[in-house]
Amino acid sequence: MTYCVGIVTRDGLVMASDCRTNAGYDQANITRKMHSFVVEGDRVFTLLTSGNLSLAQSVITLLRQDFNQGKGLFDANNLYDAARVIGKVVRHINEVDGTTLKADGMKFNLHVLLGGQIKGDKPGLYLVYPQGNPLKASKDTCFLQIGEAKYGKPILDRGISFAHTTLDQAAKYALLSMDATIRSNVTVGPPIDLCIIKNDEFSISSQRRLNDGDPDLLKMHSQWELALRKAVSDLPDVDFANSEPRFYVPKKRIVEFEAG
Amino acid sequence: MTYCVGIVTRDGLVMASDCRTNAGYDQANITRKMHSFVVEGDRVFTLLTSGNLSLAQSVITLLRQDFNQGKGLFDANNLYDAARVIGKVVRHINEVDGTTLKADGMKFNLHVLLGGQIKGDKPGLYLVYPQGNPLKASKDTCFLQIGEAKYGKPILDRGISFAHTTLDQAAKYALLSMDATIRSNVTVGPPIDLCIIKNDEFSISSQRRLNDGDPDLLKMHSQWELALRKAVSDLPDVDFANSEPRFYVPKKRIVEFEAG
Repeated sequence: MTYCVGIVTRDGLVMASDCRTNAGYDQANITRKMHSFVVEGDRVFTLLTSGNLSLAQSVITLLRQDFNQGKGLFDANNLYDAARVIGKVVRHINEVDGTTLKADGMKFNLHVLLGGQIKGDKPGLYLVYPQGNPLKASKDTCFLQIGEAKYGKPILDRGISFAHTTLDQAAKYALLSMDATIRSNVTVGPPIDLCIIKNDEFSISSQRRLNDGDPDLLKMHSQWELALRKAVSDLPDVDFANSEPRFYVPKKRIVEFEAG
Repeated sequence: MTYCVGIVTRDGLVMASDCRTNAGYDQANITRKMHSFVVEGDRVFTLLTSGNLSLAQSVITLLRQDFNQGKGLFDANNLYDAARVIGKVVRHINEVDGTTLKADGMKFNLHVLLGGQIKGDKPGLYLVYPQGNPLKASKDTCFLQIGEAKYGKPILDRGISFAHTTLDQAAKYALLSMDATIRSNVTVGPPIDLCIIKNDEFSISSQRRLNDGDPDLLKMHSQWELALRKAVSDLPDVDFANSEPRFYVPKKRIVEFEAG
């Protein structure tokens, strides 16, 4: 499996992906699922892929060929068109490979996250489905996930806000969401690729690969687990006496008396 | 959907279940999925069910009929036998209903968590599969989940330990795991049923139903989200300068000189 997440905030985008691929249980490898297409000062795209690795490679290969020839993502007018460019290539690969996959009982399984910005257009985040149609992130739904998404969703649901989360915070949330997934599911694993695309920079503002055993990652992991355990300890114990249905029986009868 | 979790620790068991059932999107109801069978001082069982509600009801109905006649769970010799009693009823209902379900393209979908203790035997926690075979929790894998299990797994993975987690802590973890699932998935919802079975009490030690809008639940939810956000703020920002591959270039050249 795979886990990829894109977060869009007021200040820009954070994209993160794991690197574990597996065909069956015994063929696990490391593969980059983060692919950037940049014309410095004009446009920047980061694509994250999940699903069948062979299909993802074909899509990225064709997108790169076109890009290098000044076509496709290179000359898309806006981010919606860029998402449509990706969808068109996804549909093409479905035509090329889908039939024989289906004949062997396999689905055409490929999801792409696209984050980026083109000069003259706003930054944005899209999910391109295996059928090629795009879904856009919004201020209300400001993160999108593909692959093994459930383990890492609660921390994002609890913490991420388009208006209030800074890019530094969003990068931490992306890593924590990734760490939760890696902790709970063996089919998602390091290295973790992480990048930030700030608004109106039209380039990859920051990027980092965190390998297995990276000291910063280990430190974050252990500091986070300690903080969680402390936060649990700080919560009041469940009050089992306070159960429904509640009978509000006064504990003390107030005795009234007259003075004098 | 459903989310149920059982946790076994050194001191006893914590069991928790949600109450939302839905057939399709427009038929959502509240149904208890926690069912206890108790002979005070001799045996206690709490069963949690997920899957097809009709099948779960049939299994619980037949188990209750037998129990009331002094059979089945009432006279099982140990907890393994009790899990086998449940598995036998599950298989019986599969014989009764499975064929017609399958004819309409539906799976025989029913999972049961069993937590409890019989006098003379250790306390324990089992998962009974739709095929009727039981899986036992262990000291290493000291919680079991059924239903929509992924959202609530990371917090348990990070915090629960058979040897070190107290029952009060385990109850908080169960609620937090449930709260994360409810937050991230609309098919799981309150009320939440929660109970504690302490070792060698052979009864339900404590139980509570937390309804939607329960003040204690709201308080826990908001205190937890605040604590998480603070914990994220307290983590150091990702150091993007510190990226692989690392070249350990000494920052200062040490100038050696001879005195005098």
